[in-house]
Amino acid sequence: MKLIRFGKAGQERPGIVTAKGKKLDCSASGFDWTADFLGKGESLKELEEWLNVHEDQCPEITDGERLGSPVPFPSKIMCVGLNYSLHAKESGMEVPKQPVLFMKATSALTGPFDPIVIPKKSKATDWEVELAIVIGKKASYVSESEAMDHVFGYVLHNDVSERDFQLNHGGQWVKGKSCDTFAPVGPYLVSRDEIKDPHDLRLWLKVNGKIMQDSYTSDLVFNVPQLVSYISQYMSLLPGDIISTGTPAGVGMGLKPPTYLKAGDVVELGIDGLGVSRQKVEEL
Amino acid sequence: MKLIRFGKAGQERPGIVTAKGKKLDCSASGFDWTADFLGKGESLKELEEWLNVHEDQCPEITDGERLGSPVPFPSKIMCVGLNYSLHAKESGMEVPKQPVLFMKATSALTGPFDPIVIPKKSKATDWEVELAIVIGKKASYVSESEAMDHVFGYVLHNDVSERDFQLNHGGQWVKGKSCDTFAPVGPYLVSRDEIKDPHDLRLWLKVNGKIMQDSYTSDLVFNVPQLVSYISQYMSLLPGDIISTGTPAGVGMGLKPPTYLKAGDVVELGIDGLGVSRQKVEEL
Repeated sequence: MKLIRFGKAGQERPGIVTAKGKKLDCSASGFDWTADFLGKGESLKELEEWLNVHEDQCPEITDGERLGSPVPFPSKIMCVGLNYSLHAKESGMEVPKQPVLFMKATSALTGPFDPIVIPKKSKATDWEVELAIVIGKKASYVSESEAMDHVFGYVLHNDVSERDFQLNHGGQWVKGKSCDTFAPVGPYLVSRDEIKDPHDLRLWLKVNGKIMQDSYTSDLVFNVPQLVSYISQYMSLLPGDIISTGTPAGVGMGLKPPTYLKAGDVVELGIDGLGVSRQKVEEL
Repeated sequence: MKLIRFGKAGQERPGIVTAKGKKLDCSASGFDWTADFLGKGESLKELEEWLNVHEDQCPEITDGERLGSPVPFPSKIMCVGLNYSLHAKESGMEVPKQPVLFMKATSALTGPFDPIVIPKKSKATDWEVELAIVIGKKASYVSESEAMDHVFGYVLHNDVSERDFQLNHGGQWVKGKSCDTFAPVGPYLVSRDEIKDPHDLRLWLKVNGKIMQDSYTSDLVFNVPQLVSYISQYMSLLPGDIISTGTPAGVGMGLKPPTYLKAGDVVELGIDGLGVSRQKVEEL
């Protein structure tokens, strides 16, 4: 199942994308893609049963309609750093022996086609295409073999990053990761059953039509069950929580000379099975 | 006004503490201390008006009743590191030139008298008494002179920290800050008008009756308006968000030899005007 949320920011309603690519308004179902829905084992089955009866009456969502993040209210966005070896190299850092974790404020969440707004005093706003995991069942101290039971599905994420804030403003990375609009998520949340192997997906990102990142999730240093299990040793992962698994090589910081986003640029990104998103870059 | 939430974990209801120290159940008001309430400028006035009429009918909350975090659903807990110079020194670090920020997962939130649970494989679970700010009005790019308008009030926070996870497990501090039960908050959320000067409060912490931390918020390196303004340059602060302003000297890591919490220990902490909390330490 592919789940979307559509409408004005802060007033989004639930919808789905059908196998044929039609976007349908599911507001009448009473469901929404909240933590309660994502965490309830039977939700997808119930939604399917509802659709079996009502799909024909669901209004079609036009292409002009805004999409929001399909995951509306994660309690946290946990990100994994340096999780592709070539990206660690281009960042001038070692491939880590255990996952490097950092958090991104959920106030950064935005829709997949919303603009990226360059923050005031930014010198180095950068792109990062990432496969993100969305948690279904609460995970605390789960083993790698149990971990996939706790995954609801996957979503495309641009882990937008201000490198000067991240690396030169003292302390931890969160300052460069949490600016408003720095987490475009979607277009859709794809349930786990639709992705046969999350470690065999091409992921790519273009800036102004030029391919900058092009890699495969087979190159992840720590894979999906390893990350879910690992993080769950440190804290509870709750339904709806997002784990962003890290970006491959090809970010602006790694170019010679480093090259960053500027107003008017257009970023497009995609992952096999998870769709394509597109953000225009704006200044405040 | 002193706001509390009471009842079983996950089922807490709103209450207040009166000037005479009585705890009253305010469920009948229809209010709760959500982001909507905290972010609405007139909320406290409306609550006062309701209390003027109904206070006599509010059931008293008995002392046996559990208290939860008075701030139920912050979108983020942003913490400030090394914000007292003597604590920076005991940590072997420099006093920072600008605030050091890190995040704590909101899944760590717990009630002020709930147990602290030592995580599996912990070697160094430590205490940190902190003054925490609770945001009222959304703050984005606010100046220091505007910052106080965005503060709803203050709360006592024990920023429990696993030093081995924080410092020796690779990468960022979040691993040692986010374990479940690592954010006992409360007993109450005190509205800004009740705290004449947030920079003139004694804060202290005892372990098994022995005083370990004893300082004044006058020693903060970066004060309340500076922190609100500073963080708002990097991201939006939303109603209900918690900013924990850092801990003074006297944590376990700074002792010679370093001394950490163990099952059976009792931690008590307090700040002038913000009450006292008490956590028993347990093992999983």
